[in-house]
Amino acid sequence: MPKIRKDKGKIRIIPLGGLHEIGKNLTVIEYENDMIAIDCGLGFPDEDMLGIDLVIPDVTYLEQNQDRLRGIFLTHGHEDHIGAIPYVLRTVNPPIYGTKLTVGIVKNKLEEHTLPWDPDLHTVSAGETIRAGAISVEFIRVNHSIADACCLAIHTPLGTLIHTGDFKLDITPIQGEMMNITRLGELGKKGVLMLMCESTNAERPGFTPSEKKVGKSLEYIFTTNKEKRIVISTFSSNVHRVQQIIDISAQHGRKVAVTGRSMLNIMGAAIELGYMKVPKDVLIDINDIKRYKPEQLTLVTTGSQGEPMSALYRMAYSEHSQVTLGRNDLVVLSSNAIPGNEKLVGRVINELSRNGVEVLHDASLAVHVSGHACQEELKLMQALTKPRYFMPVHGECRHLAANRELALEMGIPDRNIFLSEIGKVLEIDARGARFSGTVQAGQVLVDGYGIGDVGNIVLRDRRHLSQDGLIVVVATVDEESSLLISGPDIVSRGFVYVRENEELMEEARKVVQRSLDKCLRGKEARDRMHLKNTVRDELSKFLFARTGRKPMILPVIMNV
Amino acid sequence: MPKIRKDKGKIRIIPLGGLHEIGKNLTVIEYENDMIAIDCGLGFPDEDMLGIDLVIPDVTYLEQNQDRLRGIFLTHGHEDHIGAIPYVLRTVNPPIYGTKLTVGIVKNKLEEHTLPWDPDLHTVSAGETIRAGAISVEFIRVNHSIADACCLAIHTPLGTLIHTGDFKLDITPIQGEMMNITRLGELGKKGVLMLMCESTNAERPGFTPSEKKVGKSLEYIFTTNKEKRIVISTFSSNVHRVQQIIDISAQHGRKVAVTGRSMLNIMGAAIELGYMKVPKDVLIDINDIKRYKPEQLTLVTTGSQGEPMSALYRMAYSEHSQVTLGRNDLVVLSSNAIPGNEKLVGRVINELSRNGVEVLHDASLAVHVSGHACQEELKLMQALTKPRYFMPVHGECRHLAANRELALEMGIPDRNIFLSEIGKVLEIDARGARFSGTVQAGQVLVDGYGIGDVGNIVLRDRRHLSQDGLIVVVATVDEESSLLISGPDIVSRGFVYVRENEELMEEARKVVQRSLDKCLRGKEARDRMHLKNTVRDELSKFLFARTGRKPMILPVIMNV
Repeated sequence: MPKIRKDKGKIRIIPLGGLHEIGKNLTVIEYENDMIAIDCGLGFPDEDMLGIDLVIPDVTYLEQNQDRLRGIFLTHGHEDHIGAIPYVLRTVNPPIYGTKLTVGIVKNKLEEHTLPWDPDLHTVSAGETIRAGAISVEFIRVNHSIADACCLAIHTPLGTLIHTGDFKLDITPIQGEMMNITRLGELGKKGVLMLMCESTNAERPGFTPSEKKVGKSLEYIFTTNKEKRIVISTFSSNVHRVQQIIDISAQHGRKVAVTGRSMLNIMGAAIELGYMKVPKDVLIDINDIKRYKPEQLTLVTTGSQGEPMSALYRMAYSEHSQVTLGRNDLVVLSSNAIPGNEKLVGRVINELSRNGVEVLHDASLAVHVSGHACQEELKLMQALTKPRYFMPVHGECRHLAANRELALEMGIPDRNIFLSEIGKVLEIDARGARFSGTVQAGQVLVDGYGIGDVGNIVLRDRRHLSQDGLIVVVATVDEESSLLISGPDIVSRGFVYVRENEELMEEARKVVQRSLDKCLRGKEARDRMHLKNTVRDELSKFLFARTGRKPMILPVIMNV
Repeated sequence: MPKIRKDKGKIRIIPLGGLHEIGKNLTVIEYENDMIAIDCGLGFPDEDMLGIDLVIPDVTYLEQNQDRLRGIFLTHGHEDHIGAIPYVLRTVNPPIYGTKLTVGIVKNKLEEHTLPWDPDLHTVSAGETIRAGAISVEFIRVNHSIADACCLAIHTPLGTLIHTGDFKLDITPIQGEMMNITRLGELGKKGVLMLMCESTNAERPGFTPSEKKVGKSLEYIFTTNKEKRIVISTFSSNVHRVQQIIDISAQHGRKVAVTGRSMLNIMGAAIELGYMKVPKDVLIDINDIKRYKPEQLTLVTTGSQGEPMSALYRMAYSEHSQVTLGRNDLVVLSSNAIPGNEKLVGRVINELSRNGVEVLHDASLAVHVSGHACQEELKLMQALTKPRYFMPVHGECRHLAANRELALEMGIPDRNIFLSEIGKVLEIDARGARFSGTVQAGQVLVDGYGIGDVGNIVLRDRRHLSQDGLIVVVATVDEESSLLISGPDIVSRGFVYVRENEELMEEARKVVQRSLDKCLRGKEARDRMHLKNTVRDELSKFLFARTGRKPMILPVIMNV
């Protein structure tokens, strides 16, 4: 086990996202006065975050320390690692480092946003090392479900930290090199102070299969479905998957047409930057598919998560302007349903089945492999790097706990394993490692153009409104005499179908009328708050007794 | 293939639920003037049915034909087969037939409801046949994840129909007999006119494993966790699973405590009716667990779907009054997550992991088996019964389509396979089978005490409110002079956090003020509808430009 070097400096490791959650990965590493950030991702809203579009990390800590921030280092180009950059760049503008494809994707993304400054993007190759004050960051090749992914070795005067980013070991990658286990092993030999290791598949035994395995399944599908048009849906960022689909289509004499905005965007970047090679005359425009017979065509499409308005969704519901699916089509979902999306994906499969379309998915054939390391690969990462300290990152609590179990199995002592949390500071110095305080951290909700203007109270109201709807009670009261001069009127939405429940609504109006009369005659006639609370309480009691529901009740009293 | 008997009568098969959906199973079978219903189940709301508690079938057709309805025949006691009975019995009161456990569960359920009459419940044994006019219904033993399940042979003068209900083949059932494949084969030899076959697992190859397999996994878990308290969560209706847990606990010298209302209810019924045998002194009250060491205890609990407020959920969130979980506990989820519940289950696993509790689930060990037939069993059902006509039932479109593929594989001609829909009538007479018209059918939403008072408009409003919240605009106008005498006031809920957005709200008020002023000065000053529409449109435009959101806007104009 590596000794900590005799150095008086102090390392601080502060996750600002990606722990106890999937997504919004962002980790801050400090050595004394120098600070770097690893990744800057977004997250997707939980199902109880009604109306929310995206979730980004709270980066107050980065803003407060921007004079010390030497750079953001990106491991790869997935949204959960780069998606928050456009939001963070509104307030800070550090240099951003990533490999060619990663930076290409970031560039595309930033074009859709207006920023107060030009972003400071730098392209790095795997194997390169970037200095950032007293820290230097080495990019090391790993395999993943997007091309050009790296893990990072963070060299400090106190020792070397490794952050895996997302990785798997693919011994036969479609393009590019196998994960650089040699370099990781060399670092291990020299001594690694801390390994921060992703945990996504830490519950899954064995090794994740090579991307090549999907190719074999596709080959089988193409060979056994020679008479059908083949429609394949996958993650747009899975450049290697799309490459395989194109290659196999070409071998089978099929033209390939692509549909879906994100698929076209990423393919454009990948081809331009040399990460995808398309044989001549294979790609055709989706508008030209009429010129070919079904068996001469492969369609590549977005929508593998069943997203409403995605290309596959529109095809399934017969709303796609160029593609109508039927008995002559085979749809392949070359993907897995991300937890929470199972029902959306199921709906699309049902709708396709209804139209007589045959559907192949993960459950029926190996048409997808994960991009994340399973247990044996996670143990391999530990065996190579032999870290003194271990921190599971990237995953929900169950995944972090499972990764911790693997570390115990590999012989890392319990006291050297740190299950951290967002905002929690881990300090390492010559005396050892320990948690030491917290910094501001958390989630910022993005809704439309609003960043952070929707919080717990707004969400609580949305949930209340979504369950039982709303009743607005309006009355106009003469301020002088405390006499009711108009109303009460009752307006409801999302409560009951009013036309068929006129009697109930009329009774409700009478309940309000009685409450108002009583209050306005009483001692507290001028106390509007008392008036509103009484109306709300009595109407709520009446409605619950009659319907078993508790709609939101909004009394509005106008003074004249 | 069986000939249709020379008979002038006509059979009509009308699914009122359970096709193109999971749950609310209800099939009507008519022979001339006699009608029976098979099952009477409820469904659970889709995630876009906000605030809805349950979904039941529209039984208008049963109500309109109650003079012909000779009985409701229940295949087994699961909610999706019996859960709508309390609602249907409000308007019709036919005799209800089922096996002992099924009727026992129905009785328990009906005690919670007030009905206009005494229900007419009849207990039937597997092997018995009940006359219902010209129809007679034979109960035939099948295996399933609840005890005492049957399929039904419906004998008519025109021929015999078989409805499988839910089934699997368990050659080594925990209690009771193996599915009566002999009787099914005899019926097949005599000639079966139509097989209505469940489709739940029609996409899964092979055979569903025996319930005994779970016993082996549990045995392994108990042997390797001798020092821990073991907490097992499963479906309360899975009497055989609970029996196995009790038996293995007894063998290992553990006491068993049970928590969760539905678990206690069903266990009570099962023990009373002889479907569960508990060794002496094994069951203890949950309040007495303090008297035993962790390693002397097994807890059996509800909450395997991560349902908020279930016993396991409360344990995970440290809200259970008798049980606090920690490092000394092993939680076993002996269940699968029903599609749509994955995230709820995941949350409970995360919360348990956070507290250091070890969790075993389906992915890590075979601690659950399905109760539904896989492809080989579905084909076995066809091979035994050799039906002339085939109708896949019980499943979403994808499952029905997969079951249809199996029938084609088994040699049933395409023209003899009928993919039906809710409300669609299939007629069979001496000339053959054909679809012939429809009857009223569909879904009725239950929300609180309300049955059917929430429809599409109310749900649309709830969805709108849930996404972007609500703005109420109130103003009082003098009816004579069309002068604004109070307001406009703006109240918002679920839109933005008002205290931090006072400027935006003040600007919004000014937008409304301008709209009102313009309208009240104009020609259409007295047209309240015009006034409201103008306010709504202009405020909506302003808010969308500023926030990218479209809250519901409710203008209320009071006249004085």
